[in-house]
Amino acid sequence: MAYDYSIYLVTDRSSMSTMTLCEAVEQAALGGCTMVQLRENGISSSEFYYLAKEVKKITDRYGLPLIINNRIDIALSVDAAGVHIGQKDIPADAARKVIGQGMLLGVSVSDLQEALRAQEAGADYLGVGAMFPTKTKKDAKIVPMEILCTIRQNIRLPIVAIGGINRENAARFAELGVDGLAVVSAIIAQPDIRRATEELKRAFDSVSGKPEA
Amino acid sequence: MAYDYSIYLVTDRSSMSTMTLCEAVEQAALGGCTMVQLRENGISSSEFYYLAKEVKKITDRYGLPLIINNRIDIALSVDAAGVHIGQKDIPADAARKVIGQGMLLGVSVSDLQEALRAQEAGADYLGVGAMFPTKTKKDAKIVPMEILCTIRQNIRLPIVAIGGINRENAARFAELGVDGLAVVSAIIAQPDIRRATEELKRAFDSVSGKPEA
Repeated sequence: MAYDYSIYLVTDRSSMSTMTLCEAVEQAALGGCTMVQLRENGISSSEFYYLAKEVKKITDRYGLPLIINNRIDIALSVDAAGVHIGQKDIPADAARKVIGQGMLLGVSVSDLQEALRAQEAGADYLGVGAMFPTKTKKDAKIVPMEILCTIRQNIRLPIVAIGGINRENAARFAELGVDGLAVVSAIIAQPDIRRATEELKRAFDSVSGKPEA
Repeated sequence: MAYDYSIYLVTDRSSMSTMTLCEAVEQAALGGCTMVQLRENGISSSEFYYLAKEVKKITDRYGLPLIINNRIDIALSVDAAGVHIGQKDIPADAARKVIGQGMLLGVSVSDLQEALRAQEAGADYLGVGAMFPTKTKKDAKIVPMEILCTIRQNIRLPIVAIGGINRENAARFAELGVDGLAVVSAIIAQPDIRRATEELKRAFDSVSGKPEA
């Protein structure tokens, strides 16, 4: 199955205003978001599980793949489309063994070595970043555009860029040949989430031209 | 497969003195501990994974089942014998679906209703507690001995009691017909872990007489 990574929403409840997470995800879906990653810290496994079940009702309704950050067990228990792991999570090869071949495996990387290792370990796509400093992940290492470019040239997997991406800089990433933009604040912290998603999509698609679609 | 729940060690690295966790587990194994649960909070999934791999080398060497607290994904990825979940973790029925029938499922309960629900949901054994106030879980609800007794009378699954249990009160639990004592401090915080385990085992076995062994 081919996935559309172009507008990849990563959730963050602390960045949100008055809406519930489900309402925000629905607005993003209406605006053309193509994938949703549920990223939660500091809540119990039970809360994470029930939240994931709720969000999955929305993503299912709009035909969007739901990806769970870090917690493979939550992904398995809610039958999510995939799991996304960072360098401090269960190693990619071990994760692949647990989820099998049927579930998407995304891996966060910040240099070419990590990217090659993740590809080797069986990742389905890579998240590269943080591209810019970002409030939602203050300790994130910054990846120079040049490194993103090198990763793109050496990796055959789909790549989404993450970290401080918005409609102003979206085109630069499309020009580099990445498959998608993973965003938190540029969608979820906006007063009009649907419109913010549409604008981001327009900025990205105008350059990428979706040649593989 | 029949398990021996009698001396069920629950780890807590913050209660330890100078030893590494693996050294402590090995000393407990030498003292006659029959089961080990790795309980970790506040570390990354990656640290948890590698720690679990290390501890499993020890438990495998001594033929002890290794149980992972909360994180089913860690349990699956290190091929642990089982997983132990609390009331704030992934619900028992969902956990059972993810792990299948081959892996042990333990559930923490503190009253009869939770116990019956866990049994219904497919638990293999129950942890009942906290029996006494305990430093390792300060917010734990205290379970009166009478409730433990009621749970014992209404539940056919193996039961381990947990929370403030030590060699002084161990016999009371054996008399109530529980299958094992789950302990943290009574083993892991002691200067001589092997000897503390032996003494706890002796106190428990002297009453329980291991009729089912």
